[in-house]
Amino acid sequence: MKHTIAAFLLTVAAVGSASAQTAAPPVKEDFKPSSLNQPGQEYPQVNSQGYARFRVTAPDAQAVKVSLGLGGRGGTVLTKGADGTWTGTSEGPLDEGFHYYHLTVDGGTFNDPGTLNFYGSTRWESGIEIPAHDADFYALKDVPHGHVQQVLFPSPSTGTSRRAFVYTPPGYDKNQATRYPVLYLQHGWGEDETAWSNQGHANLIMDNLIAAGKTRPFIIVMTYGMTNSIRPGSPGGLAAFDIKPFQTVLINELIPYVDTHFRTLSDPGHRAMAGLSMGGFETKLIAPKHLDKFNYIGLLSGGTFSMEDVNSTPGFKEKVKLVFVSFGSRELEGGRARAPDGAPRPDPKANAEALKAAGLNSVFYVSQDTAHEFQTWRRSLREMAPLLFRD
Amino acid sequence: MKHTIAAFLLTVAAVGSASAQTAAPPVKEDFKPSSLNQPGQEYPQVNSQGYARFRVTAPDAQAVKVSLGLGGRGGTVLTKGADGTWTGTSEGPLDEGFHYYHLTVDGGTFNDPGTLNFYGSTRWESGIEIPAHDADFYALKDVPHGHVQQVLFPSPSTGTSRRAFVYTPPGYDKNQATRYPVLYLQHGWGEDETAWSNQGHANLIMDNLIAAGKTRPFIIVMTYGMTNSIRPGSPGGLAAFDIKPFQTVLINELIPYVDTHFRTLSDPGHRAMAGLSMGGFETKLIAPKHLDKFNYIGLLSGGTFSMEDVNSTPGFKEKVKLVFVSFGSRELEGGRARAPDGAPRPDPKANAEALKAAGLNSVFYVSQDTAHEFQTWRRSLREMAPLLFRD
Repeated sequence: MKHTIAAFLLTVAAVGSASAQTAAPPVKEDFKPSSLNQPGQEYPQVNSQGYARFRVTAPDAQAVKVSLGLGGRGGTVLTKGADGTWTGTSEGPLDEGFHYYHLTVDGGTFNDPGTLNFYGSTRWESGIEIPAHDADFYALKDVPHGHVQQVLFPSPSTGTSRRAFVYTPPGYDKNQATRYPVLYLQHGWGEDETAWSNQGHANLIMDNLIAAGKTRPFIIVMTYGMTNSIRPGSPGGLAAFDIKPFQTVLINELIPYVDTHFRTLSDPGHRAMAGLSMGGFETKLIAPKHLDKFNYIGLLSGGTFSMEDVNSTPGFKEKVKLVFVSFGSRELEGGRARAPDGAPRPDPKANAEALKAAGLNSVFYVSQDTAHEFQTWRRSLREMAPLLFRD
Repeated sequence: MKHTIAAFLLTVAAVGSASAQTAAPPVKEDFKPSSLNQPGQEYPQVNSQGYARFRVTAPDAQAVKVSLGLGGRGGTVLTKGADGTWTGTSEGPLDEGFHYYHLTVDGGTFNDPGTLNFYGSTRWESGIEIPAHDADFYALKDVPHGHVQQVLFPSPSTGTSRRAFVYTPPGYDKNQATRYPVLYLQHGWGEDETAWSNQGHANLIMDNLIAAGKTRPFIIVMTYGMTNSIRPGSPGGLAAFDIKPFQTVLINELIPYVDTHFRTLSDPGHRAMAGLSMGGFETKLIAPKHLDKFNYIGLLSGGTFSMEDVNSTPGFKEKVKLVFVSFGSRELEGGRARAPDGAPRPDPKANAEALKAAGLNSVFYVSQDTAHEFQTWRRSLREMAPLLFRD
């Protein structure tokens, strides 16, 4: 019995990248609609093992495929039934949490009409949610809820009004005398300012942490990081990315708007910047050069800080109150993280420990059994939030 | 020359429902991407005459069709080019403003990957915007912008936290001593609480009216009207619709939440209810029975008030400060509007005039050359807002 369970666990753990095991257990027929389905839609479905099952109606199509499935295998191929619907089940369990996907129908790229769409890969993509064992921390519960506000702030540097979403914690409207710290939280490449609320449930994570007394209430500001002007495979890679346009929007335009329109604590000891993936890359480019603005820094699957970084940045040791670095365990290969810019890969854990040894408040977090996906970043926010603004 | 222009105008006006004219002018090749396209997408496109052109990649498909086109003709059929893309142009100009649509690819229903999605017909549909001659009133301009907040309010009657969007006008954050009137604004059947912001641009309409000094600043609250439990063709039609669950949410749960969490003027003289289509039907069911809550009432393509309605409602004449009724001109057939419940069609203009003759503040508005679509309702909001809360 023990042997069987061990083999099953190994199989589950290996599915993200490896080939299917012949010893895989049978697929349980306890499929339910994904929590991200459009109202009334039965498909896609997920089962208790993490398998996904898709069904798409296209009676006259020649071939229908789902981009989601086992790594390197080109996703899940659907087969046509007598009723004109195309059905298929992922070859193995998928990682817990949120996944983007799309359909290929007769060579064209379309979204699954069954599910909601989420902005990723520079397009609105279909999304599916594999129920996670720890889903409770981002569940919609009967606790006081903060608000997520869409604001349009003037941006002379780009000649338009730009959009940001601002999370204000529960009680913000009632406690009219209270001022709050602010976290500027960036999405990744291909995404936009909607990602942290829609895919990340940042507001629910905060509501639940605050209700449990685990974090100080603070404001979160999410705007577009102007990341998508660079295309995958661009010459020079991320090194060719110009941070200045976004830095100008953030430092000169958005922060003053937020400090004017919301009851913020506007000193650098009450302002943080963090981001996931390319948003972490942006954070690392902007925050250390603006320690008069940000004293808390977070990189979520978005690089690390080495002692060379620290030593070459005037004031870093004195001013920075937290360096939070996280990755999904599947991103770490032999203890080394994939750097988003393809540069030589530093050991993020060793880097974090070196900073700690040098007296910095350096925290390193690994999300178990998750990859470069939102479940890693939901958990990272849960871990980081309680460490921010501890006056 | 005059004759040619007159013939052209006639053609344009007839396109919504009639057959194409043989005298139709040539299609101008000044097509540009629709303003609702996803970032970087070239198609769909619109031209200066209001034609729409679609292009979809699906090299192995057998047939691709767009649901949008001339009324009663089944939309626009696309034809396949040598490069595997399917292209087609609407057979005539479309009405100005916003239109929902979807693709049929080999018998399956999909969204156009080129455009943003909007919730309508109980699903997220593709949207296209035909530039309107009066688009300026809902344009994103360099004026102070209000915020649109997503709130999650407790709803014991439905056992969950429900979502509403709350527009707060420019200055709301700064004028901490000011309290504001509130308009509860409902969407139509098949839509949800996202419609008035996404399709309707209610926030931009208000920002622009306020910047021009044309309306008093007020709060707008938009929540799901629980409209979509009833299906088209249900036995009994709209008469079988039970308003009580939504009425309970609105009156007992949402209004108290808004009055607690926002700086409102909470007397009935500073609260309005209005809705489009089935949202107007809901408004007519709820507001007259709650004149201790609402003194301003608006029905946008959603029925009318007759003198019988007024006389049978205790307090109506004394308490109601505005009855606003509007339709798109294409909805009016021989002066009679299509009632959303299929009931005998009252003449809305005659009804409005009877109320006016009886001393009520009754306003009737017709949006020229628009149908049962959002351009009618954008204009209706523009017309109604300045008439609300005139103490």
